[in-house]
Amino acid sequence: MISKRAVYRGNKTFSIESSEAVAPTPGEVQIDVAYCGICGTDLHIYLGHMDKRVGFERTVGHEMSGKIAALGERVTGLQVGQYVVVRPLDHCGDCPACKAGHQHICHKLKFIGIDTEGAFQQKWNVPAHTIHVLPDGLSLQHAALIEPLAVACHDVKRGRVAVGDDVLVIGGGPIGLLVAMVARHAGGNVTISEINENRLGYAAGLGFTTLNPLTGDVGEAVHAATGGKGADVVFEVSGSQPGVDLMTAAAATRGRIVMVAIHASKPTVDLFQFFWRELEMSGARVYYREDYDQAMRLLAEGVVDCDSFITDVRPLGDIQSAFEALTKNPNAMKSMIQVSEVAQ
Amino acid sequence: MISKRAVYRGNKTFSIESSEAVAPTPGEVQIDVAYCGICGTDLHIYLGHMDKRVGFERTVGHEMSGKIAALGERVTGLQVGQYVVVRPLDHCGDCPACKAGHQHICHKLKFIGIDTEGAFQQKWNVPAHTIHVLPDGLSLQHAALIEPLAVACHDVKRGRVAVGDDVLVIGGGPIGLLVAMVARHAGGNVTISEINENRLGYAAGLGFTTLNPLTGDVGEAVHAATGGKGADVVFEVSGSQPGVDLMTAAAATRGRIVMVAIHASKPTVDLFQFFWRELEMSGARVYYREDYDQAMRLLAEGVVDCDSFITDVRPLGDIQSAFEALTKNPNAMKSMIQVSEVAQ
Repeated sequence: MISKRAVYRGNKTFSIESSEAVAPTPGEVQIDVAYCGICGTDLHIYLGHMDKRVGFERTVGHEMSGKIAALGERVTGLQVGQYVVVRPLDHCGDCPACKAGHQHICHKLKFIGIDTEGAFQQKWNVPAHTIHVLPDGLSLQHAALIEPLAVACHDVKRGRVAVGDDVLVIGGGPIGLLVAMVARHAGGNVTISEINENRLGYAAGLGFTTLNPLTGDVGEAVHAATGGKGADVVFEVSGSQPGVDLMTAAAATRGRIVMVAIHASKPTVDLFQFFWRELEMSGARVYYREDYDQAMRLLAEGVVDCDSFITDVRPLGDIQSAFEALTKNPNAMKSMIQVSEVAQ
Repeated sequence: MISKRAVYRGNKTFSIESSEAVAPTPGEVQIDVAYCGICGTDLHIYLGHMDKRVGFERTVGHEMSGKIAALGERVTGLQVGQYVVVRPLDHCGDCPACKAGHQHICHKLKFIGIDTEGAFQQKWNVPAHTIHVLPDGLSLQHAALIEPLAVACHDVKRGRVAVGDDVLVIGGGPIGLLVAMVARHAGGNVTISEINENRLGYAAGLGFTTLNPLTGDVGEAVHAATGGKGADVVFEVSGSQPGVDLMTAAAATRGRIVMVAIHASKPTVDLFQFFWRELEMSGARVYYREDYDQAMRLLAEGVVDCDSFITDVRPLGDIQSAFEALTKNPNAMKSMIQVSEVAQ
């Protein structure tokens, strides 16, 4: 059986290659990949920011959905033909983080699709423990949103969003929007701060309160809207210095800040406010198994408006143009690749 | 009845003044102040850093002990002659923080002894709700340590220190040492990082593991000593950029950082580590009522070696020389003023 795959070759280039599919080894499952979304991390890889980590022979991709094509030896509890997604985390089981129960942020974590071969290929072999079987009735295209939605579920859990909480999401890109949707589902009154007017328009269309820090002081607006209290929970998703300034300025006394963004450089932080108002901050990275379960439930409940959230879908052969288009379109939410045609 | 008091007059100067004591108003209690320790904040006031907030007619001081001399009208549950300490916080009861149950960090909090008249006076009137009655057998001199010890109790509670936790305290001054003592009492394996060799010697004499960041990499040492895990709880008490760098470097995956220090300027913070290892950080300021109760219990149990911790005791008339000496002695732990001679 021939399997096509996209290989990152460096210099903003993918090559499409074909070869005989490799049978799954013991403990592995082979998946016919249906859809795979383009993650912000994939975009960083495409732009050359992670060449040292991924090299120039890697097939990337991890926001996927598909159907089980074959089972390796010693795989139990799964069947060929099941519709599935993969939680792309492979932990060591032996480091201090694993031993303390934090396998999802194992010290030697292999992120499948970054550190090992990913889902922009038609026949994909993965460890069986990473598989989640989809509920009946969930479309494979929508299911490819489960991975980023599980990130948002994890973030909202870290922020302990409760009914009636005033929530500020700083940054209205794909993850910020999904965080906003999950936080609203948890009962929060959600405001989104974003500088891109098209993204603000999309967020407003979904019913969120929106603020643009380029046209007004978001911190002051949040305090004014909450009777001087401030935001009970703040998600910093912007990865910017102004976002970090806003997170402390907008938070209520004892407010909870969730650090979702990946800050490559070290911003200055108003630590006095942490002391003075006893602020809390928690980092949030990837997800637990239960976050995947929750993401599947929320998708099935229609919490995400998938049809508007999925900006475009292109075939695997067009992956190069999909990445090129995405770098030129700051308004896009989720660009998706149809890796192969899987009947459902 | 004549009451003597020390008045901060600006320019590193206290004047000793005498006047007729004022009777307590309804709801107030008059205290014969026995001892009052010199807090780091008092030192900041003396050095002129807080002139705008305190002015030049303020009697400061809040780390005190004493005896009830008189009760104002409508004060119930207290008696003249009781030995007491004061929790020097007066909240508004009406702001969002008070309404959310965080009265100790009320938006309009008056800190008694900074924002209102303090304990470096012989007859001191305070709101009755601030009074804690001492247990039998606790000396008035030792009881003047209850306020800073309650700070440490609050800090350790914010860090959720549990039996077996590896704890790093960054900064071995008076508060850092008290945090270390309370964290050890809670079951933590406590290491203190400090640059002053005399303070390190004092800490080592109390049985703590000590590290000097000027002579070795403390983060690496903590990871090496914990099998690559890192510190479960880190208290940042140094208020310095190197301390802030160390707090993220030394923390374990999911480690809990407590921001005890008052950072007047905004340091750079390695927020990537918050994301990558899902670190947590909580600010900690002053105390709850229960922290005072705990501090009294711990003092009674002998958790603090008061005799070595109290560096010197001088009479109220020598307050000027006490502050002058303290600014010149970075080795001092707690300098105390005997405000009046109270029989016990």
